[in-house]
This record gives sequence, C-alpha cells and structure tokens, in this order.
Amino acid sequence: MCSVISRIKPVRRLVALERSLSSKTEGWSYAATQNRLLCPGVNSLVETLRVNGRSYSTTMAMTPGLLFRQLFEKESSTYTYLLADKDTKEAVIIDPVLETIDRDLKLVQELGLKLIVAVNTHCHADHITSTGLMKKRLPGLKSAISKFSGASADIHLLEGDKIAFGRHCLVVRETPGHTDGCTTLVSGDESMAFTGDALLIRGCGRTDFQQGCATRLYDSVHQKIFTLPEECLIYPAHDYLGQMVSTVGEERKLNPRLTKSKEEFVDIMNNLNLPKPAKIDVSVPANLVCGLHGV
Amino acid sequence: MCSVISRIKPVRRLVALERSLSSKTEGWSYAATQNRLLCPGVNSLVETLRVNGRSYSTTMAMTPGLLFRQLFEKESSTYTYLLADKDTKEAVIIDPVLETIDRDLKLVQELGLKLIVAVNTHCHADHITSTGLMKKRLPGLKSAISKFSGASADIHLLEGDKIAFGRHCLVVRETPGHTDGCTTLVSGDESMAFTGDALLIRGCGRTDFQQGCATRLYDSVHQKIFTLPEECLIYPAHDYLGQMVSTVGEERKLNPRLTKSKEEFVDIMNNLNLPKPAKIDVSVPANLVCGLHGV
Repeated sequence: MCSVISRIKPVRRLVALERSLSSKTEGWSYAATQNRLLCPGVNSLVETLRVNGRSYSTTMAMTPGLLFRQLFEKESSTYTYLLADKDTKEAVIIDPVLETIDRDLKLVQELGLKLIVAVNTHCHADHITSTGLMKKRLPGLKSAISKFSGASADIHLLEGDKIAFGRHCLVVRETPGHTDGCTTLVSGDESMAFTGDALLIRGCGRTDFQQGCATRLYDSVHQKIFTLPEECLIYPAHDYLGQMVSTVGEERKLNPRLTKSKEEFVDIMNNLNLPKPAKIDVSVPANLVCGLHGV
Repeated sequence: MCSVISRIKPVRRLVALERSLSSKTEGWSYAATQNRLLCPGVNSLVETLRVNGRSYSTTMAMTPGLLFRQLFEKESSTYTYLLADKDTKEAVIIDPVLETIDRDLKLVQELGLKLIVAVNTHCHADHITSTGLMKKRLPGLKSAISKFSGASADIHLLEGDKIAFGRHCLVVRETPGHTDGCTTLVSGDESMAFTGDALLIRGCGRTDFQQGCATRLYDSVHQKIFTLPEECLIYPAHDYLGQMVSTVGEERKLNPRLTKSKEEFVDIMNNLNLPKPAKIDVSVPANLVCGLHGV
C-alpha cells in the first residue's frame, strides 16, 4: 500500500526520540589509556576558549535504521541529502542538483535504494534542480515542493504533510521569508531539520528577491525552527565556508543575524547589498518546471 | 592528570559498542502517516536499482557523548575533522588546513572546546597543515604525526597508540603505502575510521611519490581497514566529488581498485599517469615542520 505522503492538520507534534542516550561508554577501557602517558601537557591549555555555561554542540544523527548521506555540489555550494530506510530501502532525496545527477543516481543504485520522492526545499535561484531529469531516469519517482512555490510538481506540500519512506518520515514546516514557498523538512524524531535557505549555518537566505521578506523569515525561523529541540541537527541547503552541520541550540545562541531583535534583523537584511545571483534568470524559470526536463 | 596518549602493545583490540541499536522507532506514529494518502504511485518504482543481497550503507556516527564535525577546504578538497568529548570538552582535530585555520579555531571557541591534539594522518603533499600556526595560537596544543612520516611533531605516533580526549579515544593503525608515515585513526568503539589518503571513497591515495608503494597500500587497506566492522564509517582526507562518508562494507564491495586482486591493483596504481601535485614542492617541506610555523 502506498503511504508516502500523509496530511494531518493541525500538525500533530511528534514526541521526540530519547536523544540523551546513556553517556556510559561500554566496550573500551578508559583505564587502559592511562597505561603509558606521553603527557603533552594538556593541563596548560588556555581556558579562554571556554564559552560561558553549556556549549551548543552535538554528535551526528542517531536515528536507528536510517541511512543518511550529505552530498556537496561545488559550483553552487549546494548540499543534497539522501535519506533511506535501511530495511525497506525506500529513499528520499532533498535538493538534488542537475550537475551531480549521475553521482547521486549511482549512489542510489550502489546502495540498492528505491528512490520514491525528490523534494526541493524551495524554488532555487542559484542552481537548476535535477528533479525533472531524475524522474525521466527513474519512472515512478515523484517530485515534491511547496504549494506556495508556484512550481509544478507531482506533490504540492503544505504545513504538516509527512513524506514517508519506510518507517521514517519527513514532516513539512512552512518557513517562508527567503521565498514564499520555502519549507523546512524535519525528521520524524526531530533529530534533523533540512532548512533549505531559511536558516544557514551562522546565517540565513537573502530576502531581497523572489518574494523575499525579512519579517516573515524572522518569524519562520523563530516559530518553526528555533522551537525544535536544542540538539536537533541543522542541515542547510548551502554553506560557503565548508561547514556541514549545526544545531538548533548553536544557531539560537550564535547566529549573528537571528539572535538579533526583529527590527535589527530586518535592518541587516535590507542592507546586505548583495549582487544578483548569477544564474537566477536561468534557474528560477527552469526550477518552476522541475529543471526544464518536465514535471 | 594528563592522559592524552597511551601506548599499549600488542594492540589491545577494543570491543565494539553495540551498533545494532533496536530498529524499533519510538516517539512518532507510523500509523498516523496512513491517515491521508496522496499516493504518488511508489509501487511502480523500478526494481532494477536493487543490488543483489544486502546493501552496504549506514546512518551516521552513533557514539554517545561524542561531538563530531566534518569540515571542508575547497581548494585542496581536504576534510578536517573535529572530535570532542561533550562533557569534558577535550577535543582533537585531524588534518587541519592552513587556509581554514580561522574558521576552525572560531568553531572550537564557539563550542567551548579545549583543543589538546592536532594530528595529521600523514605528511600531505597537496596542502599545508595549520598545525604549527595552531600551536602558536593555542599554547599547550600538541601536534602529532606518525614516527615514520619523517616530520617533526610533539608526539610521534606508532601502531596501537591511543589519542585520548575525555572518555573517547582514537587508536592508531599504521597504513603505509601512499607514504611511509600514513596512519588510520579509529574511534575507540570502531564506529569511525579516519583513513587519510590510504582509503578514499571509491578510491585510494596515489603511490607514485613520497615513498609510495602500491603493494604496501593494498596490504594496509586489506589488513588494517577492511578488517574493521562492516558498518564502520570511512572518513577520508579528501573527496573530489562532494561525497563525505562511506563505510567499510561499501568499500569492501564497491571500491573499484581495492576489490581487485593485489596484482591488478598494483598494475592500476602503476599506470595512473597522474600529474605532479601542484603544491608538492611547497607543501611537503612545510609539512615536515608542522606547516612552517614551528613544531
């Protein structure tokens, strides 16, 4: 029976998995590490590196039975994400890029996965999606994007929709502001959030084109992303500095824009004076129809 | 008390943590996903993508209490890894690059970490390490590299050495072949292996300079890396295609070079005809002294 997407409103808040696994480390002997000490003088370390109170940091995703891969496309600095159920092999790909379609489909094939949905977090302005071409290569694959993106797709996503793959799912949170049709996709156990361009690592998407609105973006991030658990991993659509992941707690504490008041944030966003994205005139029309390769 | 490095021979094999966590997913209702079905026809998916038998794939690192970050340096396509104990905040950095030292130290500071060891998996030919400069900025930080690298460092690593940080550790496995002084650093629970240039994702380091020897590399990978648990994550020093992680199982099954016989592998490696690395004449002399900023 087909159960990829379900729509339930109001959004039923999902009880998070117990993330605070026991801190007891079994299986290797800490005491054994005391046997021979080369003693490089660690006690003299500068303490100035400590930040006050707790640090906002985490290990990686811990969802049992979930296969997860983060992939990078260099030219547009885009992250593509592949998630799959390790048992059923059903898989979802997020924000695939045209230039790396061969790499992505090769990996899907090598890992024996059944790709059922290719979803875009929004209508991108900086690269062309591979969704349309991927659908041609994988009959049965469905494309998905927010209803408010204005783009064609097999599935138009709304707040609270669930994209199911095997026993896992991604829950849609609408996070407009960078564009009208921006979504954040949250794993069922709320351990991972794929934030698109709404929230980047120590940054956020620009709001000066494609229906951008700084006030809406501020509200989206504070109401829909910063309300997730502190240790929830943030996986953005882009990073330009080689950073790959952050957490809700880190961004709440350290994001240089979104820790500001709404008024300060709007002022910052309205004065970025960024150049127009090089590919916007090609990318947006293409992405409105799944990358010019048909819906 | 200082306990960063311990040396125990013969290497005491560490009992792996139980990695096969219960596949029962608690906390979100799978049944709820059946409520409204948009039904994109997933049952028609092509089955040709399946590979025979089990697929070699995994989720990410699951070590409790471990903070882990993978970072990327674009010019040389180098991965830098930051690992820390979430409780004690003691941290180790692997293969830091000179160009990204400010990013890396900022992250260390933001996360409130105490960086105690900066380790290179080998003497790199393609980029200059930031180890020396990092030591100048963080008094007390110690550099580490294989004794057989010929490079200066505070700590010369040998087979079986353990680099401890808090309740975690990295265990040194000597994996020569790309260079004489190549090491693979394996997490205490054998869930992650930092393979440097010995094993790359679907590839391996070249063997045509810096004491390279294809036969030694083949033996190193087969004896020291492929003997790790199938689900152990492979984190290489580089990737040029935007791939970030693999597993021992995947590489055992899918690596196009190392699945060959030793004779075929040697033949492949001896006929790659690669150009000389652009930076080798600068990088190697610099890396022999921690990146020209002192040991």
